[in-house]
Amino acid sequence: VKVGSKKEIRCASTISSLIPPHNDFSQRHIGPNKDEKKAMLDFIRVKDINDLVKRTVPENILLTRELKLDDPLDEYELFKKLYKMAAKNKIWRSYIGIGYYNTYTPHTILRNMFENPGWTTQYTPYQAELAQGRLESLMNYQTMVCDLTGMKVANASLLDEATAAAEAMGLAYRHNKRRKFYIDRKCHPQSIAVVETRASALGIEILREDWQKMSFTGRDVSGVIIQYPDTEGNIEDFSALVDAAHANGTLVICATDLLAMTVIRPPGEFGVDIVVGTSQRFGIPLGYGGPHAGFFATLEHFARLMPGRVIGVTRDASGQSAFRLALQTREQHIRRDKATSNICTAQALLANMAAMYAVYHGADGLKHIGKRVHNSTLILAEGIRRAKHQLNTKTFFDTVTFVPKNGVKEIMTRAMEKQVNLRYFAYDQVGISLDETVEKNDIEDLLKIVGCLDTAEKIAEDLGHTPVQSIENSEFRRTSDYLVHPVFNRFQSETNIVRYMKQLENKDLSLVHSMIPLGSCTMKLNSTTEMMPCSWKEFANIHPFVPLEQAEGYKEMFEELERDLCEITGYDNISFQPNSGAQGEYAGLRAIMAYLQALGQGQRTVCLIPTSAHGTNPASAQMAGMKIIPINADKNGAIDMSHLKAVVEKNKETLACLMVTYPSTNGVFDKDIREICDMIHHNGGQVFLDGANMNAQVGICRPGDYGSDVSHLNLHKTFCIPHGGGGPGMGPIGVKKHLAPFLPTHPVIPPYGTTGPEAKSFGVVSAAPFGSSAILPISWAYIKMMGAKGLKHASQVAILNANYMSKRLEGYYKTLYTNENGFVAHEFIIDCRDFKKSANIEVMDIAKRLQDYGFHSPTTSWPVIGTLMVEPTESEDKEELDRFCDALIAIRNEIKDIEDGKMDRRINPLKNAPHSLHVIASSNWDRPYSRELGAFPAAFVKPQSKFWPTVSRIDDIYGDQNLVCTCPPMSAYESPFIEKDA
Amino acid sequence: VKVGSKKEIRCASTISSLIPPHNDFSQRHIGPNKDEKKAMLDFIRVKDINDLVKRTVPENILLTRELKLDDPLDEYELFKKLYKMAAKNKIWRSYIGIGYYNTYTPHTILRNMFENPGWTTQYTPYQAELAQGRLESLMNYQTMVCDLTGMKVANASLLDEATAAAEAMGLAYRHNKRRKFYIDRKCHPQSIAVVETRASALGIEILREDWQKMSFTGRDVSGVIIQYPDTEGNIEDFSALVDAAHANGTLVICATDLLAMTVIRPPGEFGVDIVVGTSQRFGIPLGYGGPHAGFFATLEHFARLMPGRVIGVTRDASGQSAFRLALQTREQHIRRDKATSNICTAQALLANMAAMYAVYHGADGLKHIGKRVHNSTLILAEGIRRAKHQLNTKTFFDTVTFVPKNGVKEIMTRAMEKQVNLRYFAYDQVGISLDETVEKNDIEDLLKIVGCLDTAEKIAEDLGHTPVQSIENSEFRRTSDYLVHPVFNRFQSETNIVRYMKQLENKDLSLVHSMIPLGSCTMKLNSTTEMMPCSWKEFANIHPFVPLEQAEGYKEMFEELERDLCEITGYDNISFQPNSGAQGEYAGLRAIMAYLQALGQGQRTVCLIPTSAHGTNPASAQMAGMKIIPINADKNGAIDMSHLKAVVEKNKETLACLMVTYPSTNGVFDKDIREICDMIHHNGGQVFLDGANMNAQVGICRPGDYGSDVSHLNLHKTFCIPHGGGGPGMGPIGVKKHLAPFLPTHPVIPPYGTTGPEAKSFGVVSAAPFGSSAILPISWAYIKMMGAKGLKHASQVAILNANYMSKRLEGYYKTLYTNENGFVAHEFIIDCRDFKKSANIEVMDIAKRLQDYGFHSPTTSWPVIGTLMVEPTESEDKEELDRFCDALIAIRNEIKDIEDGKMDRRINPLKNAPHSLHVIASSNWDRPYSRELGAFPAAFVKPQSKFWPTVSRIDDIYGDQNLVCTCPPMSAYESPFIEKDA
Ligand SMILES: Cc1ncc(COP(=O)(O)O)c(C=O)c1O
Ligand SMILES: Cc1ncc(COP(=O)(O)O)c(C=O)c1O
Ligand SMILES: O=C([O-])O
Repeated sequence: VKVGSKKEIRCASTISSLIPPHNDFSQRHIGPNKDEKKAMLDFIRVKDINDLVKRTVPENILLTRELKLDDPLDEYELFKKLYKMAAKNKIWRSYIGIGYYNTYTPHTILRNMFENPGWTTQYTPYQAELAQGRLESLMNYQTMVCDLTGMKVANASLLDEATAAAEAMGLAYRHNKRRKFYIDRKCHPQSIAVVETRASALGIEILREDWQKMSFTGRDVSGVIIQYPDTEGNIEDFSALVDAAHANGTLVICATDLLAMTVIRPPGEFGVDIVVGTSQRFGIPLGYGGPHAGFFATLEHFARLMPGRVIGVTRDASGQSAFRLALQTREQHIRRDKATSNICTAQALLANMAAMYAVYHGADGLKHIGKRVHNSTLILAEGIRRAKHQLNTKTFFDTVTFVPKNGVKEIMTRAMEKQVNLRYFAYDQVGISLDETVEKNDIEDLLKIVGCLDTAEKIAEDLGHTPVQSIENSEFRRTSDYLVHPVFNRFQSETNIVRYMKQLENKDLSLVHSMIPLGSCTMKLNSTTEMMPCSWKEFANIHPFVPLEQAEGYKEMFEELERDLCEITGYDNISFQPNSGAQGEYAGLRAIMAYLQALGQGQRTVCLIPTSAHGTNPASAQMAGMKIIPINADKNGAIDMSHLKAVVEKNKETLACLMVTYPSTNGVFDKDIREICDMIHHNGGQVFLDGANMNAQVGICRPGDYGSDVSHLNLHKTFCIPHGGGGPGMGPIGVKKHLAPFLPTHPVIPPYGTTGPEAKSFGVVSAAPFGSSAILPISWAYIKMMGAKGLKHASQVAILNANYMSKRLEGYYKTLYTNENGFVAHEFIIDCRDFKKSANIEVMDIAKRLQDYGFHSPTTSWPVIGTLMVEPTESEDKEELDRFCDALIAIRNEIKDIEDGKMDRRINPLKNAPHSLHVIASSNWDRPYSRELGAFPAAFVKPQSKFWPTVSRIDDIYGDQNLVCTCPPMSAYESPFIEKDA
Repeated sequence: VKVGSKKEIRCASTISSLIPPHNDFSQRHIGPNKDEKKAMLDFIRVKDINDLVKRTVPENILLTRELKLDDPLDEYELFKKLYKMAAKNKIWRSYIGIGYYNTYTPHTILRNMFENPGWTTQYTPYQAELAQGRLESLMNYQTMVCDLTGMKVANASLLDEATAAAEAMGLAYRHNKRRKFYIDRKCHPQSIAVVETRASALGIEILREDWQKMSFTGRDVSGVIIQYPDTEGNIEDFSALVDAAHANGTLVICATDLLAMTVIRPPGEFGVDIVVGTSQRFGIPLGYGGPHAGFFATLEHFARLMPGRVIGVTRDASGQSAFRLALQTREQHIRRDKATSNICTAQALLANMAAMYAVYHGADGLKHIGKRVHNSTLILAEGIRRAKHQLNTKTFFDTVTFVPKNGVKEIMTRAMEKQVNLRYFAYDQVGISLDETVEKNDIEDLLKIVGCLDTAEKIAEDLGHTPVQSIENSEFRRTSDYLVHPVFNRFQSETNIVRYMKQLENKDLSLVHSMIPLGSCTMKLNSTTEMMPCSWKEFANIHPFVPLEQAEGYKEMFEELERDLCEITGYDNISFQPNSGAQGEYAGLRAIMAYLQALGQGQRTVCLIPTSAHGTNPASAQMAGMKIIPINADKNGAIDMSHLKAVVEKNKETLACLMVTYPSTNGVFDKDIREICDMIHHNGGQVFLDGANMNAQVGICRPGDYGSDVSHLNLHKTFCIPHGGGGPGMGPIGVKKHLAPFLPTHPVIPPYGTTGPEAKSFGVVSAAPFGSSAILPISWAYIKMMGAKGLKHASQVAILNANYMSKRLEGYYKTLYTNENGFVAHEFIIDCRDFKKSANIEVMDIAKRLQDYGFHSPTTSWPVIGTLMVEPTESEDKEELDRFCDALIAIRNEIKDIEDGKMDRRINPLKNAPHSLHVIASSNWDRPYSRELGAFPAAFVKPQSKFWPTVSRIDDIYGDQNLVCTCPPMSAYESPFIEKDA
């Protein structure tokens, strides 16, 4: 409401009392109502919520004004605004290719997975017993990737093709320690850029070359990467290259295309070591660059060097076969100086969708699509020939390039008239990539654009039913089977696939069932209104490399979101390129390094990291080429100031930065944060503040105000992007002005501000210029609907909820760390270490026992082994918090019964947890406690509504011992960086 | 593909072999694949599917050509076509009112209920044990209606407000048998029209009058209906009217508005007997007229006269409280000559959404909305006064009417400029109705339209915070509480309501779990692509009474659908007005009667109905004022030709029609159907063919070809509208040319063809001119994606699936009826009557036992008591059919064990079925069989994926005995028309 004069103010207030705003979205987002908040404040004995904040957050960092954000919109106002914004994205037909293709998402997969909170609000499947559904689906993904590529093992997703390529380079380097790496010139430009960026920090020399000219005889080349089919569409025979490389100890990495694999010989059949790519075109909308799942497949003997999450098979306590995350979080377990990949949040939801696309189509369906795309391309290629352009592609799948006889301009003009985007090379060449959505009329239009006078029908007739140029008639023809597993052959009717998706969904606990209070993960409400726009065609169906003027809607959203996030954090600029938190860490550290180098301070490479940091922190620092020095915690869990001072003093010439999480991973607002930042700056360093815990700070304090220079923001935590069972996420970084010139750029579409005289970008971190653009509407919508007051209140209630739980558990569990006033931040750690001695109970027993109460465990053994870290978030109401506390208290009483000798130390409900239906409903029950105590241990756990784990406790040891591949020595795994995820 | 010359044919075929059509939708829709079909054909020993059809369907009715329909579209092509069609609907702001209002569907309800197959594909909750979720929600609906209206009992939905009013008139007539009925002139026009239409057939004289002038002293008036607030917006004090009516034995019916109830005194507080209305504005999109749920509330002593479904509370076999359908389908139980209402399919899904809207907002939220709407109207009314128009509304809630000082034209012109629709009365009056979506700028626009020079702000300021004219300051102010039940106070956060919706959903079996082979109900795939357009704003947000030129998109869809349905059925015209099958029956019979009357054959009132007919048939005939004569079945279940001939002969002067279901409800294609139709025509009668079984006929034979004159088409069966747990449905009727002039019209928007010199409409059957328009895209899409071949093949496979199952069950269960070749149609009846004697097992025990196998029972005891009628539909694949047969066979073996004395006759898994988790997981297990046999009786029923009934067997007797109201003598209930529904 604009208010000018006194008079107008009065008017406005009368009308707004008569027709007040609609129900405030923030009241829908925040769980507890007024009465509940009052009751909780009373319980923890603070006067009001401002009082609580004062006693929790250091005074010298408090924001003393309200955030300057637009007035909050309700869900329908928001859509009105968004319809206008969406309409500014121009949806032309794009045949640009370069790793991104139009695809048809089967509507039933769209609705039943992507638009279904049962699939989107799951957490990463660490608690395998209540995650068998998505574990099975991710196993399908791995099977699909292996089958199509002809490889032996695959992971269940990386962030995109370009980072997968960089991870492959990393593996090669880890394997043979050589410092040269070949990139074929005909790889996709963004893959080249990301690999080069990564290499530059690791001291690896990149050689761009035509593959025909590569030489390995120096035996100093770690690996080589080739693209198959290459970025210009050609399919080459790389057998000789592979032989030459292997003869000299060089690994061969092949970037490829899953759809091409349905008709051409897979790289696994000509001996490559690693295959990478994206599964985007398997039903995942373009989304202006993401999210999509990258893949990584390799041979058995490299399995344990493979980055990312891998699903494996094991058995449960009752001997039944079960899925689990195998080799989990290896990267972050590894000694910090050996850390290589920092990948954590990946693209689970998109991997699941791509896998379901393969399940839906089956081998025959995929081949049908592959052939159809290829045949369309054959017709087009013939048209280009007939139009007398110089065709540069000989053997191809879906992409052709040509030099237009009268120059590019003519083609471009005709294409624009038809609202068609093609690929225009820097040199006088045009590329066209076809895809599953191409119909006859599209081919006709393309023929007109290239100036061919014949119709598609005429050309088809001339080519005949099996065109000579077809891959079918070439040595590249695929002869091997794929996707023969029954899962790819049983669900082709919509009825069947809907039931399959539902059956998997129902095995998994998600936010639609109960709270998931995972410390550091912020599992809060992902509202429908935030989610809906992600499937609007204006956001979904746009290629990342269209000219910027076709994406004005996105631009407006980026600008608004940047403005708002800057206001929220106190930073000056945002880069949206990093598509996960870990990517943001890496990008932020690289920006710091670039900045220091530009200052002539290249010797500054030391990165200080508290021992409680998330595993991605040291991993990212290591990848950025920094030297990591750990900083101890004091007995209150805060940074040990004297240790910090000593280390800073000792390293002040080489200090690059401090990497610190705030409020700390120990669940406390460290009172010294401002002094700490000052100290670092005073000694020539920069501060990287890990933004994973922004949910305690929004509207309350701003990292940019109290001394941080750069943060990543996990939009999938504080800003409501759902976790998707392990991704997608977004990790944009906010920076102070001095770091802005160094932000990530992009070789095809440089983001605003990364070109021009000021720009000194350190490089490229993701395949797409703006990361996973298509999920940014979620965070944008959240901020717009909450408004300044709502956002601040959310932070306050997040803190209130945590303190309430901590106090309710008092006398049962010790909260490990509090601040000087006895308060925790928005999460807290409870100590379970003593129970090992007193009752033979480990923290994992408690975690599994919580499943019997219908709950997902809090974060286990991180950042402190033997503890649970609880983060309730503001979206849970008091009733749910109470149920969770009741469950923990009941468990404590069960432990007491063991301590008191009333319950057996080995055979008890905790050790046997979780109790699956298989066990409970069996005739055989030989336990010294009742079925009811096993399965319905609290009044609120009722047969008619209980969520059941579908298997008994997962046997990790069995799984580890029975991996198909041989293992690296376990000595490689030792670190304070324990499994932990978001 | 258009084909001209030989040459072109060759071209087309080459290109279409190179780029063939995408995956055929019909292959997604139809369950069995090629191999499965082959295996089934082999099993039943027929050569191929055409052979099967020849042996199943009488040769003299077979369609010998392919249907003439458009080439099938894939799901993305369909959307392209539909985007264009949708864009032709102009979404103006409509303030027309008359029972339809803009509303905000909370997005989370839209997505998690309306767009969720877990909610949409459920069947009517007859099997209460696996329907506790929606039964609870429908109970919420009843509670909401009772609370808001101040009444004691309510049903769980009628079709719309107008039919609810007609049902109320019916109740009054049943109650006191008087043949005069008053309608206040200020009721909504469509309600008046529907009541008048219904009355005319029942011989009830309707008196339209101003309520002030009504006189009851003649003691011959059955009832009176008033609208509160009335159609022009006025709120009147009806106390004196109520007293006068009651003093003379006249019932008072009040049509009202649920939102108004939040701020004005409810009718229950001034003594009315029945309250009716619609819950549309509780979050249900306008949808160009529907679907929305009508409601009906009354006093305890009328409970058993109430039409429609009522949810009640009872207990289960283990003594736990449980919900069930109480008083179910009473109407159709009643002796045919006493039948009154024919309602069957209602609006369950919409009732559930409206109830959830109330749960979401709670009492405070609803009051907030009510006040906001009222205050907006106060400002507008003041503006109208200031603009010097003659305001005709004194005390109002949301609607004002006025006589414009310079005539209507000026107002209309300004409104059209702003794309605003108002209500324009026939006389010089304008009406404006506001709603929850109205914002300040909308009021400003309306002020400009009425020519008020002041702004809304200014007016608000002058009115002050509590305007004098506010209901708050009037005697009409509501003082009583409502919605105080906890369910309306616990789910205001989105997190909570999502979990609540999910918890309810997960209690209920739907098509996402397993097949629901309900004979006569056609529970087939409702595909996502068919469903998606229903929530597009272009179809959802359009008022039914906008000028036709704003609904050109709908018009195009109606025309295409009419053309296609005519081609499919062999009829010449379609009326889309009937919004359920039963409504279609009624409309069809009325058209017949009107036709006969126009011929001067008004004496023809006899309607012949086979005894196996669905209960709605005689009920509809009774309501149409016809005399019903039952026709017997012969021993093969076919119509007893000699009986028929005799009856026809005897009644040939008075014969109006035969009402016959084809293929018959006994699951057989009667070979004599053509002769039967001829015989009826020969004797001056018409044929009404009940179209419930069209799923066996599409593409195979056409009722219009073999002699039927009119059919209703349950679009919620054959044409893929999901059952929604008991509605919505659509029952358009197809007619031969001679009946077309008599089709339903509408007082506000007469459908195309029902005006003009030819038109002789019998009247109006639904509140909206085109029934539940918003779900027509489903059927339209189904036809467009299947194409002629696909549709025919669906029918063939429906027949194949039924015959396969029937044959697989041979030796275990006797198929009661087959045709002369031993084949059944698309469904079949298995006989369970002998088990009563042999094993003390009744058909209900088998039905309940099936739940333990994860299945919903087939139709029980209809049309033959003691049998099951199985209709698999074409969407189920062989694996699922086999599982179902395996379950039935296993049950037969259990029965055998009882017969053989191996299992107890009273305590056995059948008598104890279903086995809830409560029972299975209990420590107490004292049954003579194992838990495993109870809960996992087949290998395919696995703990990790089993669907569980949430309660044990429902105790119907207890429920009946413990109804709060007194009961009419049970002697009223005796009929061959046993419970049965679709
Ligand atoms: C404190 C902290 N930092 C960084 C990360 C890494 O973020 P991402 O998983 O998005 O890569 C996490 C994720 O759990 C975290 O909790
Ligand atoms: C044979 C038959 N006729 C008529 C009907 C009534 O249709 P509706 O439920 O749509 O009113 C049904 C519904 O089950 C039916 O099976
Ligand atoms: O690797 C992790 O998922 O934390």
